[in-house]
Amino acid sequence: MAGRVDEFNEFRARMNQRILETDNKPVKRFFGVDTLTYEPGALDVRTKEMLGLVASMVLRCDDCVSYHVQRCKEEGVSDPELYDIFSVALVVGGSIVIPHMRRAVAFLDELNEKKRQ
Amino acid sequence: MAGRVDEFNEFRARMNQRILETDNKPVKRFFGVDTLTYEPGALDVRTKEMLGLVASMVLRCDDCVSYHVQRCKEEGVSDPELYDIFSVALVVGGSIVIPHMRRAVAFLDELNEKKRQ
Amino acid sequence: MAGRVDEFNEFRARMNQRILETDNKPVKRFFGVDTLTYEPGALDVRTKEMLGLVASMVLRCDDCVSYHVQRCKEEGVSDPELYDIFSVALVVGGSIVIPHMRRAVAFLDELNEKKRQ
Amino acid sequence: MAGRVDEFNEFRARMNQRILETDNKPVKRFFGVDTLTYEPGALDVRTKEMLGLVASMVLRCDDCVSYHVQRCKEEGVSDPELYDIFSVALVVGGSIVIPHMRRAVAFLDELNEKKRQ
Amino acid sequence: MAGRVDEFNEFRARMNQRILETDNKPVKRFFGVDTLTYEPGALDVRTKEMLGLVASMVLRCDDCVSYHVQRCKEEGVSDPELYDIFSVALVVGGSIVIPHMRRAVAFLDELNEKKRQ
Amino acid sequence: MAGRVDEFNEFRARMNQRILETDNKPVKRFFGVDTLTYEPGALDVRTKEMLGLVASMVLRCDDCVSYHVQRCKEEGVSDPELYDIFSVALVVGGSIVIPHMRRAVAFLDELNEKKRQ
Repeated sequence: MAGRVDEFNEFRARMNQRILETDNKPVKRFFGVDTLTYEPGALDVRTKEMLGLVASMVLRCDDCVSYHVQRCKEEGVSDPELYDIFSVALVVGGSIVIPHMRRAVAFLDELNEKKRQ
Repeated sequence: MAGRVDEFNEFRARMNQRILETDNKPVKRFFGVDTLTYEPGALDVRTKEMLGLVASMVLRCDDCVSYHVQRCKEEGVSDPELYDIFSVALVVGGSIVIPHMRRAVAFLDELNEKKRQ
Repeated sequence: MAGRVDEFNEFRARMNQRILETDNKPVKRFFGVDTLTYEPGALDVRTKEMLGLVASMVLRCDDCVSYHVQRCKEEGVSDPELYDIFSVALVVGGSIVIPHMRRAVAFLDELNEKKRQ
Repeated sequence: MAGRVDEFNEFRARMNQRILETDNKPVKRFFGVDTLTYEPGALDVRTKEMLGLVASMVLRCDDCVSYHVQRCKEEGVSDPELYDIFSVALVVGGSIVIPHMRRAVAFLDELNEKKRQ
Repeated sequence: MAGRVDEFNEFRARMNQRILETDNKPVKRFFGVDTLTYEPGALDVRTKEMLGLVASMVLRCDDCVSYHVQRCKEEGVSDPELYDIFSVALVVGGSIVIPHMRRAVAFLDELNEKKRQ
Repeated sequence: MAGRVDEFNEFRARMNQRILETDNKPVKRFFGVDTLTYEPGALDVRTKEMLGLVASMVLRCDDCVSYHVQRCKEEGVSDPELYDIFSVALVVGGSIVIPHMRRAVAFLDELNEKKRQ
């Protein structure tokens, strides 16, 4: 799993750019709405990112989980708070969430390791 | 949809009691963990209920959505905040979330109506 | 199931209007992208509606299925073509699609019955 | 929920017949494979019906759950065994399975009631 | 991702053969129905493959997406048409479809690259 | 795929330990209930593991499938019985289960190979 953070971010950025080069309007607009959704509204960005994380986790999307774990950290969500989010995902979504939680914790450990360096 | 709130709460309470009468240990313990998960931890109850709501919505479980909408209201989540939660569910989970959102809004309207009476 | 078509259309229209009255921007924009997606592009409307139907069916969203069955009929998709769409949904999504197919056929029968009147 | 058992069985039988009247070959063959799957093989019918029940429950298909609960009872699966199946579904699939479990227990209660009469 | 196309096709072919060597009848028959479903019916093969692609994408099955992207190309579906299919999948299935779309586009790019050589 | 069995077991054990080091109570209790669920009850361990396998397969969780295939083998479930479980998963969950079945069979082949050595 070494270097999963950089590899994930590089592939994500490259392919998103590749997708947005096309002239498919609904796809472009969808990406726009996606960005808009996490901007401050009645709820602040931090809460919205936590919502995005738990939603990604119960839907078992590893890449979405990685992205929102990273964003949550940037918004100052602490590790014990992240575990609370994981616990809601686990109870709502069941034991099939566990493998995704294992990968989320490995990803989080790598993020924390990078920060310490 | 008139009276959906009372009907839902009555059926839910009656069947939960019926289930907990059995002596199946894993089922009972699961219900215990489910309750524990929404108690205050690193995150407060209000935030946890919002997490439970968005998770229920992307997994498209009407009864779970009804339950968490009710709990969110009890924890002081405002209607514009609920719509922000709905918007995250909608963008993460796609247009198949819309029918559940329609029923969630109808349920919320009934809850608000009851309060005014 | 008598009158399911009218009841569905009435509730859908009323709640969509109710939702769009709010001033939640991401929700409104999402509804806009949803509409845009089924407008003519590289593929025509008829094909897009067939895609919307099969996607709704494997995701097992009865209301979405009802909506797209109706739209497909308006775009001139024949009943044998609808059954071909159902067959793809059935094979890709498995026997859990069957109850939704039963309701889709009941809905389609009611639509055809209304037309004959 | 009174009469849900009869209503479910009547609608299921009527619509299955309606579907099999069509001449869509893949649909017909799929129904054939579905029947074949639950016939005795390396595993007996009773075990296969238990597998069908837990699979239906984690996929949250109420009609499939009702059908397999009924079949399990016919194959002599006891109520405590059914609760063991429910417990696996609950732990694997999470709290979103609970509303389906409530309806499964209500259905089972009605089945048991009918038997006593 | 270099060589993902060949690796995918090789593993798929080898394991399918391995599975069909067994004498489990329902499994074999299921594979037969799966093949039959995409043969010409009321809808032509091209349309059926597009339906298979969008269904695979909303169900977020990377291997199924790779397979149907390849088949669509063989049936003459153009890249702008593929993007229209992706847009329906994206709107129906939400932002959790995006990582699968990124991988689908990377796979498509590799397919187009191979053709040019 | 060489060595997938050892790699899977090593990562699973290491990350589970890592997760259980935290002091998040709901997560710990959930892991407890998960273990309890597969202990002998009205149904024996062997049957419960078969239920866990089919549930994991229709929910398309490769790691869960690997785990339960291994546990089933330990409980004396034969290969033809495993294929019967796969056939129920395939018919209930549809062709999107096929890629997971291919990986399950590859995993099973590796397990059988290790045993012969």
